Amino acid sequence: MKLIGKALIAQGGGPTAVINQSMAGVVAEARKYSQITNIYGALRGVEGILNEDFIDLSQETSCNLEQVAQSPSSALFSTRVKPDENYCKEIFKVLKAHDIRYFFYIGGNDSADTVHIVSEQAKLDNYEFRAIHIPKTIDNDLLINDHTPGYSSAARFVMQAFSGINLDMRALSGVYIGVVMGRNSGFLTAAAAAAQKFPDDGPHLIYLPERPFNIDNFAADVQKVYLQYGYCVVAVSEGIKDSSDRPIILSLLKDVEKDAHGNVTMSGTGALGDLLTQAVKEKLGISRVRSDTFGYIQRCFLGCASDVDQREAREVGEKAVQFALATNCDGSVTIHRIGDYAVEYKMTPLADLAGKTKHMPDNFINAAGNHVTNAFKDYLRPLLGSNLPSATRLRAPKVAKILK
Amino acid sequence: MKLIGKALIAQGGGPTAVINQSMAGVVAEARKYSQITNIYGALRGVEGILNEDFIDLSQETSCNLEQVAQSPSSALFSTRVKPDENYCKEIFKVLKAHDIRYFFYIGGNDSADTVHIVSEQAKLDNYEFRAIHIPKTIDNDLLINDHTPGYSSAARFVMQAFSGINLDMRALSGVYIGVVMGRNSGFLTAAAAAAQKFPDDGPHLIYLPERPFNIDNFAADVQKVYLQYGYCVVAVSEGIKDSSDRPIILSLLKDVEKDAHGNVTMSGTGALGDLLTQAVKEKLGISRVRSDTFGYIQRCFLGCASDVDQREAREVGEKAVQFALATNCDGSVTIHRIGDYAVEYKMTPLADLAGKTKHMPDNFINAAGNHVTNAFKDYLRPLLGSNLPSATRLRAPKVAKILK
Repeated sequence: MKLIGKALIAQGGGPTAVINQSMAGVVAEARKYSQITNIYGALRGVEGILNEDFIDLSQETSCNLEQVAQSPSSALFSTRVKPDENYCKEIFKVLKAHDIRYFFYIGGNDSADTVHIVSEQAKLDNYEFRAIHIPKTIDNDLLINDHTPGYSSAARFVMQAFSGINLDMRALSGVYIGVVMGRNSGFLTAAAAAAQKFPDDGPHLIYLPERPFNIDNFAADVQKVYLQYGYCVVAVSEGIKDSSDRPIILSLLKDVEKDAHGNVTMSGTGALGDLLTQAVKEKLGISRVRSDTFGYIQRCFLGCASDVDQREAREVGEKAVQFALATNCDGSVTIHRIGDYAVEYKMTPLADLAGKTKHMPDNFINAAGNHVTNAFKDYLRPLLGSNLPSATRLRAPKVAKILK
Repeated sequence: MKLIGKALIAQGGGPTAVINQSMAGVVAEARKYSQITNIYGALRGVEGILNEDFIDLSQETSCNLEQVAQSPSSALFSTRVKPDENYCKEIFKVLKAHDIRYFFYIGGNDSADTVHIVSEQAKLDNYEFRAIHIPKTIDNDLLINDHTPGYSSAARFVMQAFSGINLDMRALSGVYIGVVMGRNSGFLTAAAAAAQKFPDDGPHLIYLPERPFNIDNFAADVQKVYLQYGYCVVAVSEGIKDSSDRPIILSLLKDVEKDAHGNVTMSGTGALGDLLTQAVKEKLGISRVRSDTFGYIQRCFLGCASDVDQREAREVGEKAVQFALATNCDGSVTIHRIGDYAVEYKMTPLADLAGKTKHMPDNFINAAGNHVTNAFKDYLRPLLGSNLPSATRLRAPKVAKILK
């Protein structure tokens, strides 16, 4: 028997450059089915459900919907709230009052956890209801998935940034430390490796949360590269940890901020970059040491999304509706690589990935723990999309000296 | 009588996304004239001349030259060295030894000063020689010029970044402070204003070095915007100064770094952003306050150069050669706006702009000193180039609440 009622879409967690493609994918697909009587958008994720803050997406033009799909960040706004049992009870009052039978939540592993909780509560409540999680995260840390929508575009940004920075530092020499987002997983920082075209191009060193970070080893690594090439470009994850698994940034911040999921806030401060800069200056006596924290610039930058990412983000939205109608179980839409390069989509039980974190596999990290492997580069390459810009250098020969 | 001899090209100061277009413009044009017997590139600006570090650009393929023209940063590398009289004497020994009669130096107002010194020394030395300065700076602070190559592409980056950040902060609320390059002139920070599409879009506040910065007024401005829109996006120049004209960042940095031109190093540290973040948290009690320092990401980012900027950077290189051959005086190639939108190029005496700084004119800054005017937006718009991405938002109507 067909489940008849309204569909509700919401977006959770940090925005990405393509999260609106998934939203548009859900809306465009849902409009085709008569059992979906209307399509609402909840503003600010689960907060919007609790507060009945809905917009009627059936009254959105297809034309504007496609424009929004191309726009970065969460058009339905977002939230860091994680519902507990009581929160869920209030949510169900609202869902029932509005006859909402399909719930699509676009987000990362924390949001998958939210969908999982809502799904379990619906069963306890005997509320006939489909709850589907749609993957999204620039961190690329969702289990089961080969990769997640949002990652590829942020990776492309990181690649384009490091391509320019490599040439900038090559021109003026010195040491550069770029701090990239990534609390527990180094995938986004690792994407800086795609900027290496010539063998001596930066980033020469890449530090990830998956390997313990030691400041003395770091300084020795930097010195070695600096002596060899006359400059050194470093990519480092904001979430690098010491050998006791304690984030390096924790030793720096006086007032540690945590969100509802217990995550420490790491972006929005230049503290880690400044610490590493100071270490290089003091330990190595190099004067020109610069650091940038990529922060919020990298996840929603307008105009450099990967077209592969756009397409896949769209498809996971579309598949979510198809899975919701074709199956009678809740789950998460997951992306699986089946070729070089092709993907397929599956429905995965929420418990398999909710609240869990995928890390960089060992074969993606070099033995020294200070760079990536070619296996990672091969993994990343197709995700960056087409028309990837490429920088180059002069090849003119040296002129013989006359005076010296 | 025609001045016969070699041409030498060098690049000085901070790199830009289009500085290689100017270099390619000089090389391609110089190849057409028989009195230019060869085209050398000096590596690392005037340092390369002193050390006879030349490459033979006549042995560079046109194809690779065009690829390099599209690549950001200074392909001939750069320097912050400012030659004095003795340095110049050494330089002339080298120029004479290699029979170099044409010198093209691509750079900002400090580099123009270098060309000026070299030009004056050549006259004293009775060395028949043309020295031409070719404009370049993301700061847009060269006098006489309507704008300078490099600025428009960096401005486009700042616009694209703030477009995404505005939507990001709109989705998750809070206060965001983006620190943009600009030691003395606010042009690049002001470019953030181009991200405002809807009336309530950020950046809501823009602080420039041209107006004294007061931390209490800043906090009051932020509070007002935050209460009105529920979030606040701020763009601030790294070079903002207090009422006694002292850079705010100076009160933060223990070890102040200065380059050969006496300029304080302001980028490559998150200190200013962190200070402003702390002020907002403490004075306003807002918990979600984030800051990014755009730093080195903004000036050489690969793949978002303005096509107008590319074209103009190319033309100033081409014109430099034409002026050098057609006139018998040294000077700087300057850009003049003559229509909406069209430009022409002139040769300007070096003394008119060397070592001087152009500031944002009063009519580009609002009365409160915390944003730009429409006159500035009109000035900026054509520079950003074609195919400028544009973000948008949902317009679907609210659904009536049932329970509340």
